[in-house]
Amino acid sequence: MHKLMKDSNRFVSDMVDGLVLAHPDLYKKVEGVNVVARKVPLDGKVGLVSGGGSGHEPAHAGFVGDGMLAAAVCGEVFTSPTPDMVLEGIKAAHGGKGVLLVVKNYSGDVMNFDMAKELAELEDIEVDTVVVNDDIAIKKEEDRRGVAGTVFVHKIAGAAAAEGKSLSEVKAVAEKVIQGVRSIGMALSPCYMPESGKPGFELHDDEMEIGIGIHGEKGLERKAVASVDAIVKELLDRLTKEVPDKKVAVMVNGMGGTPESELYITYKYVAEELQAHGYEIARSFVGNYMTSLEMHGFSITLLPVDDELLGYLDAETKAIGF
Amino acid sequence: MHKLMKDSNRFVSDMVDGLVLAHPDLYKKVEGVNVVARKVPLDGKVGLVSGGGSGHEPAHAGFVGDGMLAAAVCGEVFTSPTPDMVLEGIKAAHGGKGVLLVVKNYSGDVMNFDMAKELAELEDIEVDTVVVNDDIAIKKEEDRRGVAGTVFVHKIAGAAAAEGKSLSEVKAVAEKVIQGVRSIGMALSPCYMPESGKPGFELHDDEMEIGIGIHGEKGLERKAVASVDAIVKELLDRLTKEVPDKKVAVMVNGMGGTPESELYITYKYVAEELQAHGYEIARSFVGNYMTSLEMHGFSITLLPVDDELLGYLDAETKAIGF
Repeated sequence: MHKLMKDSNRFVSDMVDGLVLAHPDLYKKVEGVNVVARKVPLDGKVGLVSGGGSGHEPAHAGFVGDGMLAAAVCGEVFTSPTPDMVLEGIKAAHGGKGVLLVVKNYSGDVMNFDMAKELAELEDIEVDTVVVNDDIAIKKEEDRRGVAGTVFVHKIAGAAAAEGKSLSEVKAVAEKVIQGVRSIGMALSPCYMPESGKPGFELHDDEMEIGIGIHGEKGLERKAVASVDAIVKELLDRLTKEVPDKKVAVMVNGMGGTPESELYITYKYVAEELQAHGYEIARSFVGNYMTSLEMHGFSITLLPVDDELLGYLDAETKAIGF
Repeated sequence: MHKLMKDSNRFVSDMVDGLVLAHPDLYKKVEGVNVVARKVPLDGKVGLVSGGGSGHEPAHAGFVGDGMLAAAVCGEVFTSPTPDMVLEGIKAAHGGKGVLLVVKNYSGDVMNFDMAKELAELEDIEVDTVVVNDDIAIKKEEDRRGVAGTVFVHKIAGAAAAEGKSLSEVKAVAEKVIQGVRSIGMALSPCYMPESGKPGFELHDDEMEIGIGIHGEKGLERKAVASVDAIVKELLDRLTKEVPDKKVAVMVNGMGGTPESELYITYKYVAEELQAHGYEIARSFVGNYMTSLEMHGFSITLLPVDDELLGYLDAETKAIGF
């Protein structure tokens, strides 16, 4: 598997350079580090910072922008950024009203964002943290990974911050999303690491992995490939058990190598199956939001919504990835 | 190669259903036919209609919306829509001021859109046509295929139509884009047909195809995979020869299976190489616009721009794919 790159060592830095070159009016790179920040500083508002390993584009740098993130910290591919990098993100995002860190529940991310928080507090920046753990493929709740549901946290908490809410208010809105949002994913093919060119895991052409993580981590079960309606039914049978509220925003998220045609075909069956389960689809999002390099597959995210969350979901954003 | 689908015979109709279900406020499906139209009719303005074979998503249905297309005709995968289908698109797009057909230069499309134009004229709808032929991989100008440059025609002529220009004025703007826009593409892997699951062409893992078409048609040459900076240099050495004007809008278009990370890495080298050639990049677009199912690769499009074209490029659109 070859990739469009010059050198695997510069995969992330070249990507960040390209993003900033392509959108010079929106983005800037923090000097010397793979951190993407808003071009215009965020004065007098809470700044949201997210990030983690790269390879999930448009997450997270593509969600930097008015009404979403103030900065994104881009670690190497599938590798947590260092605390120093996160600190640079916090500084770039700080507009005087504090910073909220939106962290996906992986031990490396949690630890490094936490250390950065401590470093920032030494510099008198008020920082708080939320941890997203929407992936129901893991049974134990404390081990649940953060996946595509994180994007709803960015959007909704980002809109609250843009409205001028305080750090504790923005955190409360983020927690409300995290409390309700649930996701599950599947893959028809693995992703390939830039350095080795090797697949992250082996999967036969006639197999699929149900409950896969966004780094190609093992899921719930491996089985023979089925038609999309059957796959959707299996995923939603599991997912709906965890989402008792019936008015939801839905995301069908591509894993990076899934053509848009297949995502919309998938969405058709998701919509039909949710209706059969008695859900009302208040908003729908179909596309690549939280990917795994070129993995072929998708995830479904359900977010219970009320008028407050819908208002924030509908608020305008200039982030290129949403 | 498996796909997320229920049945290859319903690949396109399920996709259209999913698109309309996901965006019920923007889109409607014309009864009984795979034609996507604006939900709100386009009264008193010129309607743009495009389309062709499917498999190029978001082209063309994703470009339906305020300020771009009024309707998109979705043929089977890589297969021209019938004249009857195109006629339905024309009727759906007609707002009383005539319809402009934006056709990519493939013999089937040109013939069928032309027959539809004649049928529409019998029903007293004024119709005119432009044919896009931006792919420089073909030497003979009359045989040049329409590829990603078509999206600039949709955007710019669509903005002119939204401003209330007459059919002849909208056509003149479209022709101005077509006169200047040039593209070239490459692929690292083939795409697979939904019905057979077989690749459209064979390509070894260590080979790439330079000058490929958007249906996987043979290009200029097949050679060993190179690093992206070398690929970009080769493509731009060819492309810049055909674009004498130095102020351009640039599109780096993904072929469907290319992760966003690689598109932005590619863009970095495109921007550097264009600067080395003395170009001024007035606007840049990076993403999936005109794809080939899950093909891994990209194309570069250059459009010479003046203030008129920039104004139309910058005009707002609600089309989900732009």
